[in-house]
Amino acid sequence: MTLSRWLPAAGWLPGYRRDDAAADGLAALIVTLMLIPQSLAYALLAGVPAQVGLYASILPLIAYALFGSSRTLAVGPVAVISLMTAAAAGQVAGGDPDRYLAATVVLALMSGGLLVVMGVLRLGWIANLLSHSVISGFITASGLLIAAGQLRHLLGIDMGGDTLWQLAVSGARHLDQVHGPTVLLGVAAVLFLLWARGPLKRQLGRTALPAWLVDLLTKAGPVVAVIATTLAAGPGGLAERGVAVVGPVPGGLPVPTLPAFDPGLWQALWLPALLISLIGFVESVSVAQTLAAKRRQRVDSNAELIGLGAANLASGVSGGIPVTGGFSRSVVNFDAGARTPLAGVFTAGGIALTALFFTPWFQYLPKATLAATIIVAVLTLVDLPALARAWRYSKADFTALLVTLLGVLAAGVEAGVIAGLAAALALHLWRTSQPHIAELGQVPGTEHFRNVRRHRVITSPRVLSIRVDESLYFANARRTEDSIYDRALHCDGRRHVVLLCSAINHIDASALDSLQTLNRRLADAGVTLHLSEVKGPVMDQLQRSDFLQRLTGEVFLSHYQALEKLDPDTTKQASSKLKVKS
Amino acid sequence: MTLSRWLPAAGWLPGYRRDDAAADGLAALIVTLMLIPQSLAYALLAGVPAQVGLYASILPLIAYALFGSSRTLAVGPVAVISLMTAAAAGQVAGGDPDRYLAATVVLALMSGGLLVVMGVLRLGWIANLLSHSVISGFITASGLLIAAGQLRHLLGIDMGGDTLWQLAVSGARHLDQVHGPTVLLGVAAVLFLLWARGPLKRQLGRTALPAWLVDLLTKAGPVVAVIATTLAAGPGGLAERGVAVVGPVPGGLPVPTLPAFDPGLWQALWLPALLISLIGFVESVSVAQTLAAKRRQRVDSNAELIGLGAANLASGVSGGIPVTGGFSRSVVNFDAGARTPLAGVFTAGGIALTALFFTPWFQYLPKATLAATIIVAVLTLVDLPALARAWRYSKADFTALLVTLLGVLAAGVEAGVIAGLAAALALHLWRTSQPHIAELGQVPGTEHFRNVRRHRVITSPRVLSIRVDESLYFANARRTEDSIYDRALHCDGRRHVVLLCSAINHIDASALDSLQTLNRRLADAGVTLHLSEVKGPVMDQLQRSDFLQRLTGEVFLSHYQALEKLDPDTTKQASSKLKVKS
Repeated sequence: MTLSRWLPAAGWLPGYRRDDAAADGLAALIVTLMLIPQSLAYALLAGVPAQVGLYASILPLIAYALFGSSRTLAVGPVAVISLMTAAAAGQVAGGDPDRYLAATVVLALMSGGLLVVMGVLRLGWIANLLSHSVISGFITASGLLIAAGQLRHLLGIDMGGDTLWQLAVSGARHLDQVHGPTVLLGVAAVLFLLWARGPLKRQLGRTALPAWLVDLLTKAGPVVAVIATTLAAGPGGLAERGVAVVGPVPGGLPVPTLPAFDPGLWQALWLPALLISLIGFVESVSVAQTLAAKRRQRVDSNAELIGLGAANLASGVSGGIPVTGGFSRSVVNFDAGARTPLAGVFTAGGIALTALFFTPWFQYLPKATLAATIIVAVLTLVDLPALARAWRYSKADFTALLVTLLGVLAAGVEAGVIAGLAAALALHLWRTSQPHIAELGQVPGTEHFRNVRRHRVITSPRVLSIRVDESLYFANARRTEDSIYDRALHCDGRRHVVLLCSAINHIDASALDSLQTLNRRLADAGVTLHLSEVKGPVMDQLQRSDFLQRLTGEVFLSHYQALEKLDPDTTKQASSKLKVKS
Repeated sequence: MTLSRWLPAAGWLPGYRRDDAAADGLAALIVTLMLIPQSLAYALLAGVPAQVGLYASILPLIAYALFGSSRTLAVGPVAVISLMTAAAAGQVAGGDPDRYLAATVVLALMSGGLLVVMGVLRLGWIANLLSHSVISGFITASGLLIAAGQLRHLLGIDMGGDTLWQLAVSGARHLDQVHGPTVLLGVAAVLFLLWARGPLKRQLGRTALPAWLVDLLTKAGPVVAVIATTLAAGPGGLAERGVAVVGPVPGGLPVPTLPAFDPGLWQALWLPALLISLIGFVESVSVAQTLAAKRRQRVDSNAELIGLGAANLASGVSGGIPVTGGFSRSVVNFDAGARTPLAGVFTAGGIALTALFFTPWFQYLPKATLAATIIVAVLTLVDLPALARAWRYSKADFTALLVTLLGVLAAGVEAGVIAGLAAALALHLWRTSQPHIAELGQVPGTEHFRNVRRHRVITSPRVLSIRVDESLYFANARRTEDSIYDRALHCDGRRHVVLLCSAINHIDASALDSLQTLNRRLADAGVTLHLSEVKGPVMDQLQRSDFLQRLTGEVFLSHYQALEKLDPDTTKQASSKLKVKS
């Protein structure tokens, strides 16, 4: 039990059977074919040599198989994490390729270390601070930014930059470099990939082929594009006519090694490493949970932290880039029938064979083809209708989404995510600082009390019932105090205020002070303050202060009991009335 | 009505009568006597020449009388604001006295401008972000820091620093400079002031004198100390024996002027200016509200922002330091019978006369006397038992208090307040990210449902009742989803989950997504999800999404109605049982 908590592999490995191996092997074969072009493409996106992408798809997969809790998650380089890696490494490298590579390794090691530490300390909840809106804005903006950045390879020009504006300026300046054959090849690859995902998939769907095979054939589009354009560039001679190709890729396996420790580099990269960890974790765990739910399996988010951390540490020591669970490849792995994480180990074997024997084949692989696969992949991330949905549901969520989206596009991934996080927190504080306060009346025929403005209710002429819809804490304490006091003073003749506390989940020291003041101010005005339906944990807390001794009124278990005692006539009359549907 | 909103003086000035003038005049005389030594002392504390303290007590008082909403608040230099001014100005001045003076003027102008802008935009609620605990920790730490800093003048040595540590190191290094006569005079002044506040006050209290006169006589202690030690230093010859004195103070009134605009200075000082504004406002408005409540008057916090802002702008243009409402002098003003802000105008007149004619009298005023008045005044701010109270009531509040206290002592006022603010916010987020979730049962004989662990209640064998004690938002959405799902799966035989939403005040987009997922996961497990007692504003929001269409169960007005429909037998049986007191 304890062993399988820290090493989930101990849970499934002993019961492993031959037909599991067959299923895992088939899935691994398919994922390997899909992962080869992806590894190369995301290495290009991260700004590192092609073989680094392959290295990041060998040891990390084995580490995740041992420590991860998802049965079917396929880890490796993914688009948004590669973008973040490129932005962070570019900033500290200052144009030095060796320092750039050292930075990507440090990013992998650091985010791996952070993830493991968070897993051991059970800090998985920190990832929840990245709200849905911030993640959504970040993913859409990253997709746009990645697609814009890849135009460089599609057009064959020297543009670069971390923001949309920088990319646009740089692109405009180098527009005269546009290389005809590259554009032709790149655009053809994009169109082919779009066709494979769209029309081809629909046509195959109408045939008798099983759904998983249809999905597989259409997902094999990138492999076909890679083979066709490599043939066009090498034997076809396009490379000689100036189409940029990957060039010689050194063969062989990565030798596990630790880089020389450079404190300056670690210090400069801790924030990007933290963001990479958090965003990689959020993305990965949501894929893992979606897949696990389909087979009634469970994903433990703290085990996931350790699994992903181990994968990143493994990537770091093998000279790779930060990795995480990829959405599309995990779905392929799942649909192709993978049963256990051993499918990931088999995939790692496939990539290792590729790194050993097939790297010469990639020499003539055009960069434009990789750019085309990236662009087609990331455009599915762009979800602009999310803005409209957020606008309809909640202006606060819309604002956080928009701030993140524009922040990432205009100021880069790091600044954008931090701006979005800050906006989400500020909006949350602002909202809870202005609580909704309702005056209540009794729903006829029940013991239930609701807002007088929304329901047909009966109010007492002697007792003012108030409900505050927020925990009381420093940001709203004084405002709530003033608001209740003002309402109490405007109700001539009512000598009792009963505060229904069913929505008050905490009362901090600032709010306790305000309650004391309110009690005193109301007493000065001849009004008695009562509480009702105080929750257990809040009551425990109040008992540790002298508030309950000073309270002029009582604490009632239910609001009905308060009204029953303070104004029996109205309350009994209201309870006996016929119920009305409201 | 509109005029008096922007210019509260328009509300009381037309009805001003002669006996008001008599009352205000007497109060002004007393406050003037108290304010003269305070102005000089807080100028010393802020590190500016003595006359600057006087200047900050003339025009600002007139500006506040016109724009402020409190009838009795007495503004001027105060201890904690002067400490913050010294810390901020010292950091940007780099030892240049002219730049130091320019910085204090910029701080006054900027915090004035910020306060006015906040008032016009009705942003007074921002000050609520400074929680009770942060303020309490800040005030106590400031008191200790100020007292430690004034030891310099009490011992006659060249110590300095912004933190307790720096002061200790600097003090130890200069311990050989300790000047005997200065120490004797300073200690005598401290003892006299303590005696006047303590034993003298108690003895006079037993006499037949009216309470306000007793208070006044004891509060006049500083004036007596100033006169006595000035005589000792000048005619008595102590100044010639090396006791540091204020020295020549130029007479005359400040000429309103604007400093040359230095963008670098403004940029470097915006954060301290913001903190000075917020802390000054919080302190001032709480004094104003306390006094207003005693006479059933009202303080409008947005008018207060404008009033304080105008006072600081006036201080800035007359070459002064940031000001705010002082606690002790406001109480004296109130107790001495001040009726309208015209008392402040009269006080300003008194200080103006002082600045015109009496400055030569201050030449021989010993700095040790001013240091003694500061030390005795600020030690009343130190409230170490607050730590124990906070510990007992709430560990989160205790932590925020301690972080602020230690932060200010160890890293200075600015860093300390920001650390405290960050700690308070982080603790709030952490607490709301782990909501209390209770399983409910019916309180026998009522329609009321409470936690099964705390109350003797009756639970349904068919329906699981759950209450989440927190608004659902990004920080807790996923955790709440998992927790409810796990509880639902562990209750074999119950095919319904009713979520009592009385404590859910908001559901943001992240939480909506989690609710959708929960609904789907429960449906997959054959469990129906219902909601009860959804608040009006939350219902409005849910109706703007498709959640209610997808919800497998219903939304009930009250939890009782839900149980009445889903398990009529148990519910009716429970309702008819005798009530038990729990």
